[in-house]
Amino acid sequence: MPASPIRKLVPLANKAKQRGVKVYHLNIGQPDLPTPKEAFDALRNIDRTVLEYSPSEGLLSLREKLADYYHRFDINVDVDDIIVTTGGSEAVLFAFMACLDPGDEIIVPEPAYANYMAFAISAGAKIVTVPSSIDEGFALPPVEKFEELITPRTKGILICNPNNPTGYLYTRREMEQIRDLVKRHDLFLFSDEVYREFCYTGAPYISAFHLPGIEENVVLIDSVSKRYNECGIRIGAIITKHKELKANVMKFCQARLSPPLIGQIIAEASIDAPKEYMLMTYNEYVERRKFLIDGLNRIPGCYSPIPMGAFYTVVSLPVDDADRFCEWCLSEFEHEGATVFMAPASGFYTTPGMGRNEVRMAYVLNKEDLAAALRVLAAALKAYPGKTAAAG
Amino acid sequence: MPASPIRKLVPLANKAKQRGVKVYHLNIGQPDLPTPKEAFDALRNIDRTVLEYSPSEGLLSLREKLADYYHRFDINVDVDDIIVTTGGSEAVLFAFMACLDPGDEIIVPEPAYANYMAFAISAGAKIVTVPSSIDEGFALPPVEKFEELITPRTKGILICNPNNPTGYLYTRREMEQIRDLVKRHDLFLFSDEVYREFCYTGAPYISAFHLPGIEENVVLIDSVSKRYNECGIRIGAIITKHKELKANVMKFCQARLSPPLIGQIIAEASIDAPKEYMLMTYNEYVERRKFLIDGLNRIPGCYSPIPMGAFYTVVSLPVDDADRFCEWCLSEFEHEGATVFMAPASGFYTTPGMGRNEVRMAYVLNKEDLAAALRVLAAALKAYPGKTAAAG
Repeated sequence: MPASPIRKLVPLANKAKQRGVKVYHLNIGQPDLPTPKEAFDALRNIDRTVLEYSPSEGLLSLREKLADYYHRFDINVDVDDIIVTTGGSEAVLFAFMACLDPGDEIIVPEPAYANYMAFAISAGAKIVTVPSSIDEGFALPPVEKFEELITPRTKGILICNPNNPTGYLYTRREMEQIRDLVKRHDLFLFSDEVYREFCYTGAPYISAFHLPGIEENVVLIDSVSKRYNECGIRIGAIITKHKELKANVMKFCQARLSPPLIGQIIAEASIDAPKEYMLMTYNEYVERRKFLIDGLNRIPGCYSPIPMGAFYTVVSLPVDDADRFCEWCLSEFEHEGATVFMAPASGFYTTPGMGRNEVRMAYVLNKEDLAAALRVLAAALKAYPGKTAAAG
Repeated sequence: MPASPIRKLVPLANKAKQRGVKVYHLNIGQPDLPTPKEAFDALRNIDRTVLEYSPSEGLLSLREKLADYYHRFDINVDVDDIIVTTGGSEAVLFAFMACLDPGDEIIVPEPAYANYMAFAISAGAKIVTVPSSIDEGFALPPVEKFEELITPRTKGILICNPNNPTGYLYTRREMEQIRDLVKRHDLFLFSDEVYREFCYTGAPYISAFHLPGIEENVVLIDSVSKRYNECGIRIGAIITKHKELKANVMKFCQARLSPPLIGQIIAEASIDAPKEYMLMTYNEYVERRKFLIDGLNRIPGCYSPIPMGAFYTVVSLPVDDADRFCEWCLSEFEHEGATVFMAPASGFYTTPGMGRNEVRMAYVLNKEDLAAALRVLAAALKAYPGKTAAAG
């Protein structure tokens, strides 16, 4: 499995901290917002004497709550369609392992979440990418580009909506194009929708399960990590109406015995978080998004499209090589005792050379820290020896 | 992935319960003993506002505690040799994925824990088995039998010690034979030692890490599930001194982001469980073991070797086919309103026909329930139409 560029930077960030440099983490989707009070109450009220295995498919009470939750988004799934997993990561891994044989292919618009690649490799499968472009705001590439890549080994299309890393939200028209493609070739549609709570532009969130005629093809990937700020509990889900696939996924679930019990108890309680909590989180991201994107686009030579959802954006920088620039920021640069840790976009592309001057940033820091990070970035771009003409 | 025979029986057990029949679960290693008080105290005292990702390799404080714990058993490993996993299951899966390429082989004495097979298949690898026999009390098969099976694709030997499903504890002589084999062919020694706390005969527990000269070859699989009665928290570990392997395992760990945070907090606290707690658990199993094995060997035609560790035994029954008998017990038989759920041993063998009249039983029920289960079993063997002459 190839090491992602971001992982190579972690030791450099640690060294910078050891030198006493403050590091602003724009590199990881670890929200700083509080986990709901309901989650901690559930934790403190656990009244058990044995912390035993839960069912391999997850606690029934959690699956029932999740079904209710999905119904609020007009996602009409039954309790039996929901299998609880150890985070969204395990959901992706088991979905791939259950659907794909070695040599099978899935098509993914890139840039794409780097760990998809890792999980596809784990399943012995191949990720085939269709590039989307920052100039088009990372919109869905023309559907003909997908058609061109379909072979007898193509088993599915994978999307992430709202998107990590780009923040793009697929339009109804784009989702319908995907549906037609999936239907025409009888493919699986793996749809990672863990950021559904975070859509900022008034444009509707179109779930893969909103598309009529492919209900059996959809494999929804979900996680409670981002919406309730509880990444550490490792609770996700695979939702599918495909009977045979469900049975296959269950074999992997049974082999790993059960998802984490305490995490499930916390997730179940979190679904009861009040509207005010969800709104607080939402409003915070709305503000941070405006603040970060405005700030980025004011830095000479920087450009970020306006992300419509999630809490990431992919930014082009006036540098020769973003991998090198990110490394330089951590190892050779500081401004007022601080530096920035960004994720080079090269880790989100498989096409060589793509995203060379791009980075992903997550806006999971408070506005004060974002402001400081922007100041550091502007200064870094001035000082960086590999800056391009556009940096002015 | 093939479905294991035990999984096919689960729906039958559920139906029996729906009919109002009491089902004694001898089929699964889910202890009924309490989780330590220290674990619940830690849970109630969690003082955090965000349940964030933990490091991919696990919390440093837990890894430090685990290192101290291993030192008590003269297992001399450093904090850096320990990678925390989501249960022992993930430890096995990642160890296989990191060590084995598709087509690679590992050799396992059978009967063996069924999920090993599932995980090996997930890694695209092949499990090659060496049968051990109930007549020899499931001792290690002659080392020549292993030698015969070694090919250029053989990458490792997998043992479980004390053993699930047989309860066998490998002797020093046997462990030294394994060491010589591993050294001679430069293989990995995957050693699942999650039952080390449960050795009943005064014979020493020989860890793979006690064997001089193969320190770099050992991949120790561990889990806190069984020793602290907390199977549900999903915390295990891979312990290895092999640098390249560590780096490979870490790639899988990073792809799945982190092990469960709350589980790690509980596991760390559980390591502080007092001696009295460990002794209570130990003494309980000593009693149950004596009670169950005595009871089984009094039933005409039944035979169980005396297990030396863990909390399982493999028993031969006077029946034509244990798969059929286990199914019959759940679907067609009851005695005083109750029946028994046993694991057919066929699921622990890959050699066709082996273990045909054997079942695995776990003694994780209290003595009263074990007594009732034994009465049901005796009655079932009398009534079963497929009994063999030995049943009398």
